[in-house]
Amino acid sequence: MPEKKLTYPFVVEPFQEDITGSLSWSVLGNLLLRVADFHASAHGFGSDYVKATRRAWVLARLIIDMKRRPMTGDKYCISTWISKVFRQFTDRHFAITTPEGEVLGYATSIWALIDYQDRIPVDLEELPGGGFVDIAIDEVPPISGPGRIRLGKIDPVATHLAAYSDLDINGHVNSIRYIDLALNQLTLDQHRSNPVHRVEMTYAIESLAGETLSIYKAQQGELTHDLEIRRGESTLVKARLIQQA
Amino acid sequence: MPEKKLTYPFVVEPFQEDITGSLSWSVLGNLLLRVADFHASAHGFGSDYVKATRRAWVLARLIIDMKRRPMTGDKYCISTWISKVFRQFTDRHFAITTPEGEVLGYATSIWALIDYQDRIPVDLEELPGGGFVDIAIDEVPPISGPGRIRLGKIDPVATHLAAYSDLDINGHVNSIRYIDLALNQLTLDQHRSNPVHRVEMTYAIESLAGETLSIYKAQQGELTHDLEIRRGESTLVKARLIQQA
Repeated sequence: MPEKKLTYPFVVEPFQEDITGSLSWSVLGNLLLRVADFHASAHGFGSDYVKATRRAWVLARLIIDMKRRPMTGDKYCISTWISKVFRQFTDRHFAITTPEGEVLGYATSIWALIDYQDRIPVDLEELPGGGFVDIAIDEVPPISGPGRIRLGKIDPVATHLAAYSDLDINGHVNSIRYIDLALNQLTLDQHRSNPVHRVEMTYAIESLAGETLSIYKAQQGELTHDLEIRRGESTLVKARLIQQA
Repeated sequence: MPEKKLTYPFVVEPFQEDITGSLSWSVLGNLLLRVADFHASAHGFGSDYVKATRRAWVLARLIIDMKRRPMTGDKYCISTWISKVFRQFTDRHFAITTPEGEVLGYATSIWALIDYQDRIPVDLEELPGGGFVDIAIDEVPPISGPGRIRLGKIDPVATHLAAYSDLDINGHVNSIRYIDLALNQLTLDQHRSNPVHRVEMTYAIESLAGETLSIYKAQQGELTHDLEIRRGESTLVKARLIQQA
């Protein structure tokens, strides 16, 4: 059986940086999804399994908390593991480190496995062979939990028409694109002077191409920004961005 | 000395596909830029050289012509080489193949090396040690040249506010993001029924964060779409997309 915790090596390639010269949040976010799939596949519940059973892993929550993001040419590793399977949900944790083991940051996430046909989440404790239950490790990243975001009745700061380039293979707006939409609401000066070091995402409802998304934003203190992405009255995604002090 | 033509292996990873299930144009486009840098670096004129000399490689033209794009899990290779250096410009070609050598597509591009300070292009035939002149190969991809795009006075079909997630390390809108902006103007039905197989891009002027880009589009025949991306009266980028018959 593969190890319960698996580690994958990467390098920050040219064109993977943002304007600060560090690995961009979108590349990092998509790599977290990728290693999640590598790890799930190694343990029998990756993309091949979900395709064959007509199910899909759906991301419900994601927190990425970086001490620093690696720069062009830097080697780094992403480790991932599960610590708890609780009925319809599993957590999944990540550590982002240098090859020497220095911690660059952590991420933590919550996932459900949804049946395509009836859109009902599967009981993950009842998967064949115990599913992930047997590979859970009693270890969680030392980062704080998510904050409470509630923006109430305010005016949107921007709108976004969901289009081809936002979509994943299932035709939904890619989870990581919402991080970009949130980051785009900060000014370049904010990104340059105090780069975002922590991103909290809560995913409630999926959106499809052609839908107009409205983006709402409220600042909580000097360096914390709460955002909601809504379609009409429905909140699809909540986000909190925290800039480095 | 490294080979004149260099080849880099890749795999279509999960989350690198578009809604058709094939490698997305944006991932492919960014990989072309990446292997261009790998090849240029191997021959002494990559990102380290341009950083040290305060210059930047600027993409003036890019044509990508795919017979088919690889799908999730498929292995593929990108080869790149130079065939001609002509004063301020160098071409750069690409072949995208299966590991067995079956051609999936080709790309061709034209680049200039711009001095940061005075924004003047360097004479590439006068680079130290002959620059790329000595590694040119008398071989060009068997794809047709660019079409002539001139949209004239029409109304824009969309606008786009250039933001953080569009920018590269130099603070300009990433060349490949313009391909996404063009592709977003086709409907999902068009992408699904007749996927785009050829993209032609001409880059004239760079844009910065905070600028509002207007997108103009005219259909030429059933499967050919010409686009211009303008900032006010200035045309920044021209694009032609051709769907598979």
